[in-house]
Amino acid sequence: MSLIVQKYGGTSLKNISIIKKVAKKIQSLNLAGTKVVVIVSAMGNTTDSLIKKAHQISKNPSPREMDILLSTGELVSSTLLSIALNSLKIPAISLSGSQAGIQTDINHGKARINSINPKRIFNELKKNKVVIIAGFQGTSLLEETTTLGRGGSDTTAVAIAASLNTDQCEIYTDVDGIFTADPRLVPKAQLLHQIAFEEMLEFASYGAKMDPRAIELAMTYKIPILVKSSTSNSLGSLISEDADMKKTIGEIKNKVRGIATDNNVAKITIRKLKDKPGTSASLFGLLASENVSVEDIVQNSSTGGFTDLSFTLKKPELQQALTILKNSQFNSNISTVETANNLAKISIIGTGMQNTPGYAAKMFRTLGNANINIEMIITSEIRITCIIHESDLQSAAQLLHTEFSLDKNNS
Amino acid sequence: MSLIVQKYGGTSLKNISIIKKVAKKIQSLNLAGTKVVVIVSAMGNTTDSLIKKAHQISKNPSPREMDILLSTGELVSSTLLSIALNSLKIPAISLSGSQAGIQTDINHGKARINSINPKRIFNELKKNKVVIIAGFQGTSLLEETTTLGRGGSDTTAVAIAASLNTDQCEIYTDVDGIFTADPRLVPKAQLLHQIAFEEMLEFASYGAKMDPRAIELAMTYKIPILVKSSTSNSLGSLISEDADMKKTIGEIKNKVRGIATDNNVAKITIRKLKDKPGTSASLFGLLASENVSVEDIVQNSSTGGFTDLSFTLKKPELQQALTILKNSQFNSNISTVETANNLAKISIIGTGMQNTPGYAAKMFRTLGNANINIEMIITSEIRITCIIHESDLQSAAQLLHTEFSLDKNNS
Repeated sequence: MSLIVQKYGGTSLKNISIIKKVAKKIQSLNLAGTKVVVIVSAMGNTTDSLIKKAHQISKNPSPREMDILLSTGELVSSTLLSIALNSLKIPAISLSGSQAGIQTDINHGKARINSINPKRIFNELKKNKVVIIAGFQGTSLLEETTTLGRGGSDTTAVAIAASLNTDQCEIYTDVDGIFTADPRLVPKAQLLHQIAFEEMLEFASYGAKMDPRAIELAMTYKIPILVKSSTSNSLGSLISEDADMKKTIGEIKNKVRGIATDNNVAKITIRKLKDKPGTSASLFGLLASENVSVEDIVQNSSTGGFTDLSFTLKKPELQQALTILKNSQFNSNISTVETANNLAKISIIGTGMQNTPGYAAKMFRTLGNANINIEMIITSEIRITCIIHESDLQSAAQLLHTEFSLDKNNS
Repeated sequence: MSLIVQKYGGTSLKNISIIKKVAKKIQSLNLAGTKVVVIVSAMGNTTDSLIKKAHQISKNPSPREMDILLSTGELVSSTLLSIALNSLKIPAISLSGSQAGIQTDINHGKARINSINPKRIFNELKKNKVVIIAGFQGTSLLEETTTLGRGGSDTTAVAIAASLNTDQCEIYTDVDGIFTADPRLVPKAQLLHQIAFEEMLEFASYGAKMDPRAIELAMTYKIPILVKSSTSNSLGSLISEDADMKKTIGEIKNKVRGIATDNNVAKITIRKLKDKPGTSASLFGLLASENVSVEDIVQNSSTGGFTDLSFTLKKPELQQALTILKNSQFNSNISTVETANNLAKISIIGTGMQNTPGYAAKMFRTLGNANINIEMIITSEIRITCIIHESDLQSAAQLLHTEFSLDKNNS
């Protein structure tokens, strides 16, 4: 008998009538003899509204308390889906992260899964029940509720799929799948039917809504992820190891698979930082210890014992980072600090680029011809990223999408 | 160092600004060097709104799923109160029922507490933390979340007070305490400063808003309960063993302590039921097994092998009870079944009545003189109850309140 793992996001569970529709979808699988394990996010914007409540009380609520607070969102959606299945005469049971055997580290608010003991899940499946697991949460060795951070339910789903050794993990969302670019920015964006883990990892890190940890986990355990809409009939996008093998001829020719964008970018530039061994390490160590996530770092080569250092971070973290720098030992070593919080990232992504020269040059030329200024450049083997002004993002995305032959009618 | 257990009901936690006020109240206790354990209900009408969501999906949701769903309400309020205390620089920690060591039976939706292991509570108190416990919930031996039913947080509070061996349990609510009658029905109702457990048990069973199980537990473990308003400065009502000892002279003279009322009463009368040994037992056993709560039973003496049997129940359960009777083996033994669902209960209550004759006669005469028809009479040692028409309830309550010298200016 086949076993399938499905994850439904918050928009796919946003109200009672939509929860009933999801139940019907699962019912038809169950009636066809498939065993189903479902991972759920919190309904609609529940998580945001709980965070808002806490922030009305305190600017820095305890991460432990926040985890218990936020974990309730998934408990509610999992029980309601279970009740909806029962009302269709389908036996079902909801399990909390803890009951599902999800053990995490103690890092509240951004815990990592250490292990999954799927005993209870298997027991319930044996009783022919649909098992519905509250995503985004687990329990630490201290028996404290933990949450996995934003997008954590994706990670739960892939981890559960891995622990149950299923062939695939299905992720249902409010879009048709993974696109060559954000369709809100680039109307000609097209659906990617297949995409490699590595490519998706770059998309996920650079704007597309999927938790990079979920993709890393899927890559490690070789679990293909099918991302599709919970409402439309689109076939969705398969994220897998072998995307290359299955590519259409059109797609093989095109080594750029998509454009990733992110308009939530701020930058700090430190001029004339004393260039001693260990300076960067302690600087970024300090920021990390205060939970500021630094994204990209560029350091120019040193002249006269001084260097210029730039790094990007999310806009809301800019002020905190500046305060930390100001109060740190580095303050006296710094000539000037410049900041910008109106930036964006744009990247071209594709595993096929890695052994082929000329992509970077073509990207820079395209932006340059349109008078779009490039603030920073960061490249990896399968990605070339430019930091540009936020106001240039849409035109840059459309130009690059056309230039790299990604438009709908060009493929 | 003194230790105090406080419970805050839903109206005392209904929004963020009220939660902040409760935190300030606890802060002053903490600053005065008192250790505090707080039990919380869900915010405002959270529980009702979760029930409503479930009922939009199913008329008979699984009690197990409902328990997980409803338990989230108290998790939210306990974490928010903890965050509010932290923001006042008071160390605090929220504990779920399970983390607080509350072990219950497996009876979902109306679980009973089997035991409390207060180890974690003591550990957190030792760390000088205010401990905030999610009321109304526990965990079964099967490691399933259970809830204690309506008013369950009162029971949690008393059980925790008993397990911590405190001198008193404070219950904060939206009224000033226990009154001689429902002030909405009887404007001259007065606050009772002291009341005996046995008397309160009768009040609680007959309309006043407190969980009878909490009072039974307090009586067993001899924990006085102080019920008071979370907003006013009223001294509240002390429910204790020794109410008699502390009574004022005026109160000693008056052996009726209060009037309890309940307008949620339906009645079933079975005419000419075959009067064999065991008939009542199996009839009420059957109703109990289907979770219909029968409240009062009156059976007339048998004539010719047949008897008339009447019993009361809550209005919403009338239809279910009739269906059960109709489908049962008793159906063929029943000549006619009569029902009424427009009834009310009115009781006079007082431990002093038990050895003093004349109270019943006075009650019946007062109602009779006002042309109020009595449908059923039930008495216990410290309570005399009449079932009357709902439309007569208010005037009956006011007449008896005056007749038994309970009016404000009479005491």
